[in-house]
Amino acid sequence: MSTTITTGWTETEIEISERVLKKAYERETKTLVEKVKNKIENLQQVEELWQVHDLLSSKRYDLDGKYDNREPMLVFTFAQLLKEGWINLEELTGLEKGKLAQISSLARM
Amino acid sequence: MSTTITTGWTETEIEISERVLKKAYERETKTLVEKVKNKIENLQQVEELWQVHDLLSSKRYDLDGKYDNREPMLVFTFAQLLKEGWINLEELTGLEKGKLAQISSLARM
Repeated sequence: MSTTITTGWTETEIEISERVLKKAYERETKTLVEKVKNKIENLQQVEELWQVHDLLSSKRYDLDGKYDNREPMLVFTFAQLLKEGWINLEELTGLEKGKLAQISSLARM
Repeated sequence: MSTTITTGWTETEIEISERVLKKAYERETKTLVEKVKNKIENLQQVEELWQVHDLLSSKRYDLDGKYDNREPMLVFTFAQLLKEGWINLEELTGLEKGKLAQISSLARM
């Protein structure tokens, strides 16, 4: 793998990226909502409520940083989402081959 | 109302205080749990989840400070709980009359 990270993105690539990011964010937040609903439904003690609060604090911080759509960061953003299973490589079809290779390699790190 | 705040508490008064504080904390956190359950049950969007997170952050901070059981603070703690409706004066029966008068006066401020 080359150490050069591609930074130029075409208009089409940006469109694909935005669509994929939106989809991944929806999936991840939907999963979080379900998880919290489940935890809250069976909750008895206030201590468990604070655990849910801790989970939300952590996920909110995580989500705020993770969906970085700045062009120089996109390769890393996608690699992270791929690694965590929120996207798959096929969804990124249309991006230049070099970028796909970088994303794929970074996701395995 | 005198400007002197009573600071000496008998063993019996401490016992009453601890019992009342525990009860009030249970009431307030139970109400919070119900409120959160209700909000989460009808929740659709992740933005609403962040609103619940904000509510929990605020309530947790509030609760951490409010249930101050240090002797010199008890009069203020009870006044606040009385004002917010988490306790009533009758539950404090057994405390010295001066303390009850102070709590009652502070709660009306």
